[in-house]
Amino acid sequence: MTTDRDAFEARLRQIGAERYHDLHPFHDRLHGGDCTPDQVRAWVINRYYYQHSIPMKDAAFMSRVEDPALRRAWRSRIEDHDGTAENEGGIRRWLRLAEAVGLDPDYVASCEGVLPATKFAVDAYVRFVREKTLLEAVAASLTELFAPKIHANRIKGLLANYDFADDSSMAYFQNRLKEAPKDVAFGLAWVLDHADTDEKRDMAAQALIFKTDVLWSQLDALWGAYVAPARIPPGAWQPGTGLSLQRAS
Amino acid sequence: MTTDRDAFEARLRQIGAERYHDLHPFHDRLHGGDCTPDQVRAWVINRYYYQHSIPMKDAAFMSRVEDPALRRAWRSRIEDHDGTAENEGGIRRWLRLAEAVGLDPDYVASCEGVLPATKFAVDAYVRFVREKTLLEAVAASLTELFAPKIHANRIKGLLANYDFADDSSMAYFQNRLKEAPKDVAFGLAWVLDHADTDEKRDMAAQALIFKTDVLWSQLDALWGAYVAPARIPPGAWQPGTGLSLQRAS
Repeated sequence: MTTDRDAFEARLRQIGAERYHDLHPFHDRLHGGDCTPDQVRAWVINRYYYQHSIPMKDAAFMSRVEDPALRRAWRSRIEDHDGTAENEGGIRRWLRLAEAVGLDPDYVASCEGVLPATKFAVDAYVRFVREKTLLEAVAASLTELFAPKIHANRIKGLLANYDFADDSSMAYFQNRLKEAPKDVAFGLAWVLDHADTDEKRDMAAQALIFKTDVLWSQLDALWGAYVAPARIPPGAWQPGTGLSLQRAS
Repeated sequence: MTTDRDAFEARLRQIGAERYHDLHPFHDRLHGGDCTPDQVRAWVINRYYYQHSIPMKDAAFMSRVEDPALRRAWRSRIEDHDGTAENEGGIRRWLRLAEAVGLDPDYVASCEGVLPATKFAVDAYVRFVREKTLLEAVAASLTELFAPKIHANRIKGLLANYDFADDSSMAYFQNRLKEAPKDVAFGLAWVLDHADTDEKRDMAAQALIFKTDVLWSQLDALWGAYVAPARIPPGAWQPGTGLSLQRAS
């Protein structure tokens, strides 16, 4: 017998099957080895803005949580990104990837050159978590349900197709393979427990759809600016700039 | 020679000397053994609301910080309150104090019965940190500069004057004696480094004054409701309720 809870979980998973950004052609291109070095760099620069904003999103969530136990459970997400005494953290790992593709990590960390459309999408996500219900905020995080598959494909595809890919530059994705399942198991159970009316289930599903839009629109912006026909908007990163000193000299 | 930096630090310390809530008569009464058991309970119930809000305030701060290093430095404040694998955390320690004074810790944790004036003051602080500049948010935290003295006086006064006071119920204050100096050393240095114009120094000083108002007004509300002439507002804690099961039976 299918329960409401099972049916709702299936509904959430179907949103991923139809809308997650693993379906975006940029990822085929990236993982298949068809990106130019500058297209990879543009992806690394823009995706950094998302990474850099995620701990702010998680802190915004915690700032609205009255239950110390829920805050404690959520805190590890910030630790995973910002690092701890034992763990350099996802943001530093991403900057190692930036170096591996020939970019100056300080340039990448400055967030100069990020596409305005990337900023609008990512900032909308942080604001969503700050302003919507806790249920919607947790539901939006459930794109992590669909992340292990894309990370595994990415590691395999990048290692097969690009010289920059090695254990050090892939460390971000390798770590997310370990970290994301723990986060998403907690988040999924929390959403299934708390979405106990049709109205709340609809809100949670809409929140997850919103989040898939946030991810997808970043790749559309990247494609429009740097793939074909590329039209880089004013102020955004120009190929040939922001390179690491060794390459620039 | 006195530098701008030294003069500014002296100005901040002078704010504490004139306005910190160690000067409030409620604290003389509490530390001197002159509070009735119900007055101590009212203080524990209302002060809990402040404790319970502080990690939300710190998360609100972190949600606005773009620098991972600053977020990392700030994160230990949340750990100190919410706890870690090795540390039960300040909120649980406060609930042990609640039990020691005969209150049901679940009642205290529910935040029912907290004076509306306490909530308004504390919520104003969380909102201040969410909305003002980072400099003002850090400056507001500098009341910690003045806390070790009041905590030391409190431990001594409560141990001397009340049966409920022992190592377990005083653990919150003992731990704050260890934790606060590390936080405030960081916060003070950050404010002194970043308040580099007269305008910013004025803003930081005003923020610290605001925070002393937040603390002081909580004690005024407590005094008006539970000391003399006591007038408990509608909905606030009534002596004889919210007691632990042993005492109530």
